[in-house]
Amino acid sequence: MPTVFCVGHAVQDFVFSVPVLPDRGEKYRATRFESVGGGPAATAAAAIARLGGRAVLAARVGDDAAAEMIVAELAAYGVDCAHVRRCSGCASSVSAVIVDARGERMIVNHLDPALPADATWLPGPADLGAAAVLADTRWPEGALDALGAARAVALPGVLDADRPIPPDGALLRAASHVAFGADALTDFTGIDQPQRALAEVARGLPGWCCVTVGGEGVYAFEDGGIRHYAGFDVEVVDTLGAGDVWHGAFALALAEGRDEATAVGFASAAAALKVQRRGGRAGCPSRAELEAFLAARGMA
Amino acid sequence: MPTVFCVGHAVQDFVFSVPVLPDRGEKYRATRFESVGGGPAATAAAAIARLGGRAVLAARVGDDAAAEMIVAELAAYGVDCAHVRRCSGCASSVSAVIVDARGERMIVNHLDPALPADATWLPGPADLGAAAVLADTRWPEGALDALGAARAVALPGVLDADRPIPPDGALLRAASHVAFGADALTDFTGIDQPQRALAEVARGLPGWCCVTVGGEGVYAFEDGGIRHYAGFDVEVVDTLGAGDVWHGAFALALAEGRDEATAVGFASAAAALKVQRRGGRAGCPSRAELEAFLAARGMA
Repeated sequence: MPTVFCVGHAVQDFVFSVPVLPDRGEKYRATRFESVGGGPAATAAAAIARLGGRAVLAARVGDDAAAEMIVAELAAYGVDCAHVRRCSGCASSVSAVIVDARGERMIVNHLDPALPADATWLPGPADLGAAAVLADTRWPEGALDALGAARAVALPGVLDADRPIPPDGALLRAASHVAFGADALTDFTGIDQPQRALAEVARGLPGWCCVTVGGEGVYAFEDGGIRHYAGFDVEVVDTLGAGDVWHGAFALALAEGRDEATAVGFASAAAALKVQRRGGRAGCPSRAELEAFLAARGMA
Repeated sequence: MPTVFCVGHAVQDFVFSVPVLPDRGEKYRATRFESVGGGPAATAAAAIARLGGRAVLAARVGDDAAAEMIVAELAAYGVDCAHVRRCSGCASSVSAVIVDARGERMIVNHLDPALPADATWLPGPADLGAAAVLADTRWPEGALDALGAARAVALPGVLDADRPIPPDGALLRAASHVAFGADALTDFTGIDQPQRALAEVARGLPGWCCVTVGGEGVYAFEDGGIRHYAGFDVEVVDTLGAGDVWHGAFALALAEGRDEATAVGFASAAAALKVQRRGGRAGCPSRAELEAFLAARGMA
């Protein structure tokens, strides 16, 4: 049961289902409400725990009721929250997520600018017994610290390179593995064709990198060229959190000593199972489900 | 310190401040977030407690984190929440409130249809030592029970007659005092001129009734005709919860044995102080502030 140290963003989403998205200053009635945790690093940590790994999360929250909700839910998944720091006088990140009948989402997020950027309090991955680090881009100082510490002890350091990627590129260079979101890669490179953009950015990076393109699968830059990993053909019900599950599963597979090709298959299978189920991280498969899915495709 | 028994709706509002209201399925950034309690009966109860009365609230909440937030905030105001019932398997009422820079509000509310309507568990006002009852229209069965029980022991029973008023009119007839919101009165009567609508509806009601029309003041039906109580001329900063504060103060004044004219002045002064301050119920004045306001106008 290897440990993955996850560093980044944890948020509480207040999700309201409505027939049609609101568009003006009026009163609307929701048919359904759910309060669920989100945030790339936090959801990846929950996925790792579901998949049988040990996940330690470091994140900044406020000293408010939302922090209690965030930590209680992650703890229920089995995530170690000892390094989720309550920052006094700050607000936890929260979002109103309003979803219409077709799955279209209006998101209003609040991120407290007073949350301290300082990351010097982060434990080292070796102190945690971690076999890999996973960081998102929402707390760049934390990501830089953790990815640097992973590199110093020759552990895999995975960057979930989603919007917004700090333009100086320091986070990308700190990681041993960079997994771009397609939109974030376009923003960063100014090139809207994922394969071309990846080839362009890969030249400046010391490690392995890929871009995830939803159902189209994954393009990785390997041996000086682009390799395509096809996606699984499944019926998509809900994509919320699917990318985060992919990153968690990918980091866990590396922590287990798999090579990148095997880790991409493992992660894509986890995401393919997730998108077939309603709910965000709650739709993450168990390890047994994931292995059965891979075995049925001759990939176990 | 007389007791007012408040029966009705308690909700948690997740309030996001944005420069401009969202209008499509995209991601928006909030500049400010607050999680605050709302609901007509619950906010009236908080106002009563601020104004030196004892407030006992009966309301239905779920067995969720929002229920904890609702009760914790009301308890901090000094509201007796022993009769706030946690309904197992239900969700508490919650709203996303998105406010733009001009104060315009988009509200998405979720009210769980599974919350049990049954009100037979409500204590009697006499058992609580209550000197008045205040009910809103969001839990008609609860309001009908409490207003009927007040009438049976000859206590004032105030109905906050805001949208939606059940069309059979039973709630209006159960109350000794009905305070209509202007829009609700228009909806109920089909007459958009408040004085005419009030005169029309008053004929069918056994008790005293009035309509509150914001800064224009209050029209009451007294001695067979319409009496106008002018509003106070104050600078309006935030009207959120002002109506609820008005109803709480009005019920408290009746519980203290004041006549209707005095109670209207007391309530209008409480609301006039509230609208000068940002925040919902947090802007409710203390008793000392209210008495100083009235004394300065020769009304103490």
